[in-house]
Amino acid sequence: MTNSSPYRVKLVLSYDGTDFCGWQKQIHGVKPSIQETLEAALARVFKEPVRCVASGRTDAGVHAKAQVVHFDAPRNPENINLVKALRAMLPNSMVVQSSELVPHEFHALFSAKAKTYRYVISTKPTGPTFLARFCHWYPHRFDLVHLQELAQVIEGTHDFKSFQSVGTEVPNTIRKIYRARWIEKRPHLYYFEVTGNGFLKQMVRNLVGTQLYYMQKKRPAEDLQKLLLARDRTQAAYAAPPQGLFLVKVYYPRALDNRYRGI
Amino acid sequence: MTNSSPYRVKLVLSYDGTDFCGWQKQIHGVKPSIQETLEAALARVFKEPVRCVASGRTDAGVHAKAQVVHFDAPRNPENINLVKALRAMLPNSMVVQSSELVPHEFHALFSAKAKTYRYVISTKPTGPTFLARFCHWYPHRFDLVHLQELAQVIEGTHDFKSFQSVGTEVPNTIRKIYRARWIEKRPHLYYFEVTGNGFLKQMVRNLVGTQLYYMQKKRPAEDLQKLLLARDRTQAAYAAPPQGLFLVKVYYPRALDNRYRGI
Repeated sequence: MTNSSPYRVKLVLSYDGTDFCGWQKQIHGVKPSIQETLEAALARVFKEPVRCVASGRTDAGVHAKAQVVHFDAPRNPENINLVKALRAMLPNSMVVQSSELVPHEFHALFSAKAKTYRYVISTKPTGPTFLARFCHWYPHRFDLVHLQELAQVIEGTHDFKSFQSVGTEVPNTIRKIYRARWIEKRPHLYYFEVTGNGFLKQMVRNLVGTQLYYMQKKRPAEDLQKLLLARDRTQAAYAAPPQGLFLVKVYYPRALDNRYRGI
Repeated sequence: MTNSSPYRVKLVLSYDGTDFCGWQKQIHGVKPSIQETLEAALARVFKEPVRCVASGRTDAGVHAKAQVVHFDAPRNPENINLVKALRAMLPNSMVVQSSELVPHEFHALFSAKAKTYRYVISTKPTGPTFLARFCHWYPHRFDLVHLQELAQVIEGTHDFKSFQSVGTEVPNTIRKIYRARWIEKRPHLYYFEVTGNGFLKQMVRNLVGTQLYYMQKKRPAEDLQKLLLARDRTQAAYAAPPQGLFLVKVYYPRALDNRYRGI
C-alpha cells in the first residue's frame, strides 16, 4: 500500500482464466479473481498486505500469456526467489514467468505503451477437446481472405466507439491499431492477432465477433469502414466469447524496462 | 445389452480426463466416469439403455486423443448423425471424432491388436500454464540421449511384471513393444511414445517414472535390463502422474475396420 516503498516489482504472469472471475474481484463473484489470488500469495510471501496493479483488467474467462503487474514490496525482495516462492503458493493455473525490480516511475497500467491480444478460433467439425478451454468453437465456413480484408480496415487510428461494450463508455474512444491480422496456425485453427496503443472494454471480442459476422454475411470491408464511422455499438455484432482471448504481450518504454537486473 | 442387435457401432472418442474418475465407474467416485457419461448420452439418443465397451480402461486423469469404443445400437443408427447428436449431449471435455457401423465380430477390447500411448513432460522452469492439465511438470536436468538408451531396452518382447501396478496382477505379463522413443517436441516439452500389443495396468506410467528415475540417478541401460529380468514391481520407481498420459491410437485388424461406410 505504501507509496514510500523503494522496491517496486514488475511481474510477468500467465494464467488460464477459465476458473477465475477475471482480473478484478467481483462483489458477488463465485469464482476468485486473479488479483485477489495473486495478492493473497504475495501477502504470504511478505507477511504483509500487498496491492497489485495490472496492465489492464482481463474479463472472466480471458487468459494471459504475459500479463504485467506491479506492486510495491514491503521489504527488499532481492533475496527472495519470487518466481519460485509464488509457484508454490499459486494454483497451477497461474504462473509467474519473471520478476524484477523496476524504477518507481514504472506503472503497469499507466506506463503501458501498447498491447498485443490473440483470439483463437477452432473450426474443427467435431469440436476441440484439449483446446476447449482456450478457443472459440466456430465450425462454419471460414474465409481467411475475406477476414484479412476486414482486419485491414481495423489498422490505423480510428474512433472505436462502435466496438466498446455497452454500459462501460469512456470519453475518449480513439485508439491506434498498429497491426491486425488473421493467421492460419494449422488446419482448423486460426488466430486473430491485434496490437494497439490501447483497447476499450471488450473491444477485441467485439472486433472478432463483428468480423466473423461480416464474413458469414459476405459483407465487404467497406461496410466495416462505415460501421467504424457510425460510432454506434448497437450496429456491431456480438462479442466473441471470452475463452478464445489471450493477452499476449504488453509493451513499455525501454527506459522503464529491465533497467535493474532480475531478482 | 442385447447381443442380437445387428447394429454394432464403433466410436472414436477423445477426452480431457481431468474431470473424470477414469473410463470405469467408481463405486465411491466423486467425479463421473467417461463410460457412464457416454452411456447416458447414448441412452438419450436411442431412448434405451446402451452399454459401451472401450479398448481399455484409462485411469482417473488420463486423457485420450482416440479411445475406441463399441456398442450395440438398439435400432438402426444409419439415419442418425451420431457425431453431431453426441456433441450436443456430451460435456465439452468429451468429443466423438467418428462413428461407423462395424461387423458384429468387432470388439473394442478383444479385437485390439496394438495401442500407442504418449506421455507428455514439461521441463519449463517456471511451470506450464495452458498445458498444466496435460503434462507432468519435471523442472529438472533432462538427458534425452540417456532416455533414448533406456527406451531401447523396453522395445521387444519382454515380461513386464516389474512394471505392473501392485494389487492388479494378471497371469500373463509378457507384452511386445514395437516401438518406444523419446521426442523433443519443442524446447522444454518432451514426449515419450510407445506402441505395443498390450499394456499392463499403469505400465506406461511406471515405465516413464522408472526412466526418469534412472536418468536422474545416471544408471545405465543395463540396469533397466536387469530390472526387467527381475520381474519385481517393488524394484521399479514411482508411477509418473496420470495427467501426462494420452491414449493416442488403437489398432485393429483391417478386416474389422472401416468395412462399412461411415454413418
